[in-house]
Amino acid sequence: MKKDRIKIVTIGGGSSYTPELIEGYIKRKDELPIREIWLVDIEEGKEKLEIVGNLAKRMVEKAGLDWEVHLTLDRREALKDADFVSTQFRVGLLDARIKDERIPLSHGILGQETNGAGGMFKAFRTIPVILDIVNDMKELCPDAWLVNFTNPSGMVTEAVLKYGNFEKVVGLCNVPINHMMSESKLLGKDPEELYFQFAGLNHLHWHKVYDKEGDDVTSLVMEKIFSSENSEMENIKFIPFFQEQIRDLEMLPCGYHRYYYLTNDMLQKELEEFEKNATRAETVKKVEAELFEIYKNPDLKEKPEQLSQRGGTHYSDAACELINSIYNDKRSTMVVSTRNNGALADLPYDCAVEVSSIITAGGPRPNNFGKFKPAQRGLVQVMKAMEEITIEAAVTGDYGKALQAFTINPLVPSGDIARTLLNEMLVAHKKHLPQFKEVIEKIENGELK
Amino acid sequence: MKKDRIKIVTIGGGSSYTPELIEGYIKRKDELPIREIWLVDIEEGKEKLEIVGNLAKRMVEKAGLDWEVHLTLDRREALKDADFVSTQFRVGLLDARIKDERIPLSHGILGQETNGAGGMFKAFRTIPVILDIVNDMKELCPDAWLVNFTNPSGMVTEAVLKYGNFEKVVGLCNVPINHMMSESKLLGKDPEELYFQFAGLNHLHWHKVYDKEGDDVTSLVMEKIFSSENSEMENIKFIPFFQEQIRDLEMLPCGYHRYYYLTNDMLQKELEEFEKNATRAETVKKVEAELFEIYKNPDLKEKPEQLSQRGGTHYSDAACELINSIYNDKRSTMVVSTRNNGALADLPYDCAVEVSSIITAGGPRPNNFGKFKPAQRGLVQVMKAMEEITIEAAVTGDYGKALQAFTINPLVPSGDIARTLLNEMLVAHKKHLPQFKEVIEKIENGELK
Amino acid sequence: MKKDRIKIVTIGGGSSYTPELIEGYIKRKDELPIREIWLVDIEEGKEKLEIVGNLAKRMVEKAGLDWEVHLTLDRREALKDADFVSTQFRVGLLDARIKDERIPLSHGILGQETNGAGGMFKAFRTIPVILDIVNDMKELCPDAWLVNFTNPSGMVTEAVLKYGNFEKVVGLCNVPINHMMSESKLLGKDPEELYFQFAGLNHLHWHKVYDKEGDDVTSLVMEKIFSSENSEMENIKFIPFFQEQIRDLEMLPCGYHRYYYLTNDMLQKELEEFEKNATRAETVKKVEAELFEIYKNPDLKEKPEQLSQRGGTHYSDAACELINSIYNDKRSTMVVSTRNNGALADLPYDCAVEVSSIITAGGPRPNNFGKFKPAQRGLVQVMKAMEEITIEAAVTGDYGKALQAFTINPLVPSGDIARTLLNEMLVAHKKHLPQFKEVIEKIENGELK
Amino acid sequence: MKKDRIKIVTIGGGSSYTPELIEGYIKRKDELPIREIWLVDIEEGKEKLEIVGNLAKRMVEKAGLDWEVHLTLDRREALKDADFVSTQFRVGLLDARIKDERIPLSHGILGQETNGAGGMFKAFRTIPVILDIVNDMKELCPDAWLVNFTNPSGMVTEAVLKYGNFEKVVGLCNVPINHMMSESKLLGKDPEELYFQFAGLNHLHWHKVYDKEGDDVTSLVMEKIFSSENSEMENIKFIPFFQEQIRDLEMLPCGYHRYYYLTNDMLQKELEEFEKNATRAETVKKVEAELFEIYKNPDLKEKPEQLSQRGGTHYSDAACELINSIYNDKRSTMVVSTRNNGALADLPYDCAVEVSSIITAGGPRPNNFGKFKPAQRGLVQVMKAMEEITIEAAVTGDYGKALQAFTINPLVPSGDIARTLLNEMLVAHKKHLPQFKEVIEKIENGELK
Repeated sequence: MKKDRIKIVTIGGGSSYTPELIEGYIKRKDELPIREIWLVDIEEGKEKLEIVGNLAKRMVEKAGLDWEVHLTLDRREALKDADFVSTQFRVGLLDARIKDERIPLSHGILGQETNGAGGMFKAFRTIPVILDIVNDMKELCPDAWLVNFTNPSGMVTEAVLKYGNFEKVVGLCNVPINHMMSESKLLGKDPEELYFQFAGLNHLHWHKVYDKEGDDVTSLVMEKIFSSENSEMENIKFIPFFQEQIRDLEMLPCGYHRYYYLTNDMLQKELEEFEKNATRAETVKKVEAELFEIYKNPDLKEKPEQLSQRGGTHYSDAACELINSIYNDKRSTMVVSTRNNGALADLPYDCAVEVSSIITAGGPRPNNFGKFKPAQRGLVQVMKAMEEITIEAAVTGDYGKALQAFTINPLVPSGDIARTLLNEMLVAHKKHLPQFKEVIEKIENGELK
Repeated sequence: MKKDRIKIVTIGGGSSYTPELIEGYIKRKDELPIREIWLVDIEEGKEKLEIVGNLAKRMVEKAGLDWEVHLTLDRREALKDADFVSTQFRVGLLDARIKDERIPLSHGILGQETNGAGGMFKAFRTIPVILDIVNDMKELCPDAWLVNFTNPSGMVTEAVLKYGNFEKVVGLCNVPINHMMSESKLLGKDPEELYFQFAGLNHLHWHKVYDKEGDDVTSLVMEKIFSSENSEMENIKFIPFFQEQIRDLEMLPCGYHRYYYLTNDMLQKELEEFEKNATRAETVKKVEAELFEIYKNPDLKEKPEQLSQRGGTHYSDAACELINSIYNDKRSTMVVSTRNNGALADLPYDCAVEVSSIITAGGPRPNNFGKFKPAQRGLVQVMKAMEEITIEAAVTGDYGKALQAFTINPLVPSGDIARTLLNEMLVAHKKHLPQFKEVIEKIENGELK
Repeated sequence: MKKDRIKIVTIGGGSSYTPELIEGYIKRKDELPIREIWLVDIEEGKEKLEIVGNLAKRMVEKAGLDWEVHLTLDRREALKDADFVSTQFRVGLLDARIKDERIPLSHGILGQETNGAGGMFKAFRTIPVILDIVNDMKELCPDAWLVNFTNPSGMVTEAVLKYGNFEKVVGLCNVPINHMMSESKLLGKDPEELYFQFAGLNHLHWHKVYDKEGDDVTSLVMEKIFSSENSEMENIKFIPFFQEQIRDLEMLPCGYHRYYYLTNDMLQKELEEFEKNATRAETVKKVEAELFEIYKNPDLKEKPEQLSQRGGTHYSDAACELINSIYNDKRSTMVVSTRNNGALADLPYDCAVEVSSIITAGGPRPNNFGKFKPAQRGLVQVMKAMEEITIEAAVTGDYGKALQAFTINPLVPSGDIARTLLNEMLVAHKKHLPQFKEVIEKIENGELK
Repeated sequence: MKKDRIKIVTIGGGSSYTPELIEGYIKRKDELPIREIWLVDIEEGKEKLEIVGNLAKRMVEKAGLDWEVHLTLDRREALKDADFVSTQFRVGLLDARIKDERIPLSHGILGQETNGAGGMFKAFRTIPVILDIVNDMKELCPDAWLVNFTNPSGMVTEAVLKYGNFEKVVGLCNVPINHMMSESKLLGKDPEELYFQFAGLNHLHWHKVYDKEGDDVTSLVMEKIFSSENSEMENIKFIPFFQEQIRDLEMLPCGYHRYYYLTNDMLQKELEEFEKNATRAETVKKVEAELFEIYKNPDLKEKPEQLSQRGGTHYSDAACELINSIYNDKRSTMVVSTRNNGALADLPYDCAVEVSSIITAGGPRPNNFGKFKPAQRGLVQVMKAMEEITIEAAVTGDYGKALQAFTINPLVPSGDIARTLLNEMLVAHKKHLPQFKEVIEKIENGELK
């Protein structure tokens, strides 16, 4: 039964993204009858939670809304009877991300906080926590929807489906919406004038574009991109793809494909940043510190312009639209991480995929995609296998599986270097990896080399 | 490039359905900028073509539209530069359908003009003609869409895709829309308030229903149907399904499932009609004769009320809406016959299926469905195999394949009786089965028994 | 660890087949170091057990072997530390089979004790018992192999795999070996000179034949069969297949295919037998009574000639060879029911199929078969679905599932007649259907019609 | 029809392996009734052909056989009416292999003559030639079997199946037989006492081992390997695998897996060899020169001991046994490259796989394998995709596809470095890449960078 007024909970509510989220809700105030917004964080995030939470309160007040905004460190209190739970937390905060990026680079290996060694460790840290949250949800708000935008979003979603046995989960990412907006602009069209078909995994999807006449204009978009000066994604370093290879794909890659298609060049770029202490994580840390200074201003009553430079543009907006589309059965088409069920014929039936879907009151219903060409197929299959093994390692704390996942990941060179890196990262993230406790002790004792 | 004014061709234009089609276009006059409508028929249908064609002209005139309505026996002239071609012809006219129904019944076997012995012969007669039309289209209007509602619509669509190698084809049927309308009514809702997911083959699909809260209300619809007095489909004899079996399906069957789930009871009903010379074909023939008398009236300038009793309600309306949705890239959700591409994981990748799809300017894009439960899976798989073999027999004129198709069809009892029936029907339909010429001669000579 | 001496248990040891089994072991005495043979039966079978058990003892003694032959009604005592357990029991004895065949025929429907209504009831009665046996085995002899030849052998095997969660099971049937022997004879060859590839389900498989030059001689075998006067299977009524249809298959059907390909003709034959009280079950009952008279003769010390007329020729021999091949890792090729694992691409990955396999010490390893042509595919898929639902009904006692299975089975006409038949059979077999207790009470009370 | 005496043709007959092949035939003289052996080579290989061909003649003579040994440069004359054609040629000879290995290493990239950049160029050079040979075979000896052991054997086999449309092809490799022999030794058993199940692609397969009791002894083999001092493959550098990762696989990798599992370490080893001008190709070149000196000795009348150091041990023996098993329908189990047909459920139905198969007169019949665990699945899928694209590039000469294949190959770092390497290798191998003629001209002109 549809409720008249709803309760929305955001875990990791102290995030710098929160003002965008609040703005997104306010923009949809006529469609989304919110009663309560709960921003939840942990002890270490208390200060940020208060800063951003107070900004949120001022924003709601300025909008003349009667919504209650609660700030709490008590997750269970917040979850009680929630209707939607969004997750945007970061276990270990940005310092953990800095390690995710800098340790691999110190070995001359890409960190890549979603699909590389860094992303795998983010999965190791995050999956046990999300499964805890799901356990609480099953008890306290079993009918609520979990809207995850904690990275690695695809793996987190799959973990919830497979190991949490919880179906009402949707994974979100802002990469597809950014592509849709930038490519529409390149063609001089509104996004609604085009039909986009996305298929793949989180941060590893391809898409086709069709116009109002039904014509496939994918190669036209390629042409515009290759003749343009601009990157489609500001937070991915701009290195141009190889035209001949992209044309052979017959689909547009996403920005993150640079890590796969231009691995060595991306590595060189990141090594330069590493040298300058300017990895993405470090940059973000600075930007965030500045943002929180701005948020503190008691006269600030709306999302500040500076947030858009943070890199997650459209992220929170996508989350609000998703909640809106579920609540109101709007059946809008969005690109989300959800259970495959055969929509992508080349991937396991029960895994999570990122695919264009109709968002109904019953959740996402994927458009069928079918089979990829070999070039996409091979890469997406090896990365899905890497994800499956990483998730299993995250759940079991098994060293062999963690090493297996490192070995199979094409962004990590295999061999002694991979093992050394794995061991060093396990020790470095020790505090947030309870499942690997025994393994880490062995490494520290020199029993495991 | 989208055209400013479009040319629509209807093959089998002399059909009694044509007024509904014209009415459908008129209703959409603000969205569909028609320039020419061509109604095509064959010599034997000339009189009907003129009667219904003149009514069409009067309807267009009364609506104050500048559309040209052409009546012709020259199919190639009509096809030249067409934008949409709809097909609603009947090879051998209603007399052939009478044979399709009465010959099997004379042996105590269901005729069933779409999936039974009758439907298989309809496929044998129709497929060579549709492949001819497709050949003409490839030459004269290669960018036009073929909208087929000639039965058996699923097999005809698959033949065009596989043997015509023509991708721009959509098969249509009014069964799904009728279910959506009657079930909405049972729940006291507008169809738009519900989400219907259909999957299967033409005249052999199941569906689930969800409400605005995302809840699966399929079992609620079942309850309403079993406690109601009315059939959902007027042109299917009303015999109630078995509740326990339907509930076990967890999906709603279509009206035609009575032929599979209540085979013996349906047979008894049809045998009664056979005795009274009141098979469906004979009834339709009478209704049509009456309709054409009505159509002749020069004062009639709109679709007469009586047409709705003909049985094909919403058929032509669906066709108009499909054309509208393709032309305007409306992305409405419709249930159509189209290439599977993995949307139904239990059926061959390249076959035609009937499935809820988004209709874009590039044609239907199926919603992913995934896997059926065994009860649906087994039946839909055996019927698809029957369809594949029937199509192959229709294309090759191979007797072994025709007999194979009869043998595997669960609506035809196998053995001597099937062979006798096959032979008798081959001879009876001789005129319209050029591909079986040699086989039929052997039967007539007693060389093939 | 391979044992030096082995213990073999036969459940349903009082069967008339037992002497063939004993003969089979004796023939393999140099390879199979048997220590104990346990023949187990139930109270009602005690007399037969003693008759046949004593014959077994005389046979072993005459062969000069030191094997212990134990006769017991205590299944658990027998199972303790067994190495091989073979099952050939019949719940409800031949009287139940008589009902399985006569009740359907009384409604003008095929009984067919393996795949028709009769076979489904045999599954309903047998599956709970086999699952009980498996539970005992898990406790008392967890490393033993279960060699099942109780019909319906495919469904029983699948039930053990899926619901018993017991992997060491093989289903056996004498149909393939009979085909191999009769077809070799037709070609004037030894079976070893030919290569047979079987694929399908129990009593529903097809095969191809190749000669020593690698040539496909399947069509040559067809030619010989169609020009010969003899049936390949003595216990299936001989009605010739249709040549054109069989040639289109490009594979040889098994004898049981007559039920599917010549349904109506088989029905007429069985109805004649029904009238004369000479259904297969009744004939077998007479033959068995005579056999047991013969077995009683204390001077009989070997398998009597008359047993070969019983119909199960090569059945027990196949079982002995299977045990031999497992025990000695002989890697002989046999056709068995085992888990699919993708060997037949058209069927579910985890179901049981009947397929040519190499028999190793680790059990059967299927030869890969791949995809069928549509004619085989459709039939085998609908029958597998029927099997899955029947097994589920047998395990749960769910009336809707039982009705579903009846509805989907192509050998049972659906509708009121199927429901009436189902209800009548449930009541008739009441004693052996504890899982359907509540359902049967409702039928008897008139609450379920 | 099986012939009384057979004609065997070896293309690349001047290879240093030929004496082993001849020895293999001689060993099987009682089973293989050879009439003629034709050794074919090209102009550049004439001298070697004569040296090794004369040795072959002496070997046959010494064995007292009446076989004719023909040496020819006329491939078509040789192929006429052949029964078996084996291929062991190397387009561009060892100098091309030296480039395949040294050019990548000069960029700090693994050459790897089968699956790395080197192997891809070997495919580019070899596939057009093998397709030419197949064309000749279709005309001159359409019933002959093609036994390929030219590397990359899997890709060559797939090219023949898919683009040559020739079914009678088997790909061979000595890696599986070497594993079987060394692992049997580790367990102190004869190979026949164990059951090996191999599955994967050429040079990328895993296997399980079972003993005579049916127990899976794979982990026992792992234990022996990890506690032993010896490598299983002399021609693969010995670097130990990581125990934890291998145990997680639950299957034994092949020696070539070091390139995938220990990429960086293998690269370091090869770079050392590169520095010393001691890459594998260079070493082989020296060994071969020495071998041919030995072969020249007119008193030498048997395979010299030194050949076994060449690296291809058991290669030719496997080829002889394969021919023997086909000719005599021996049904021995061998590991070969053949069409998948669903034996490996995770790979395309129609691709070539390397899998344990029964070798019949009709060719290999794969044992079913089913699904891999994710760790194997992901790697084998990405490599198969790489193979498919490489083959397509080899057939079409398309630059985008060649770059795509380089990009997706996990042994080649992607980005500018890959493109530079591709371009340099295209130019270096220009003489043997007619299909890339235009592309190479553009590179040389600076039009393609």
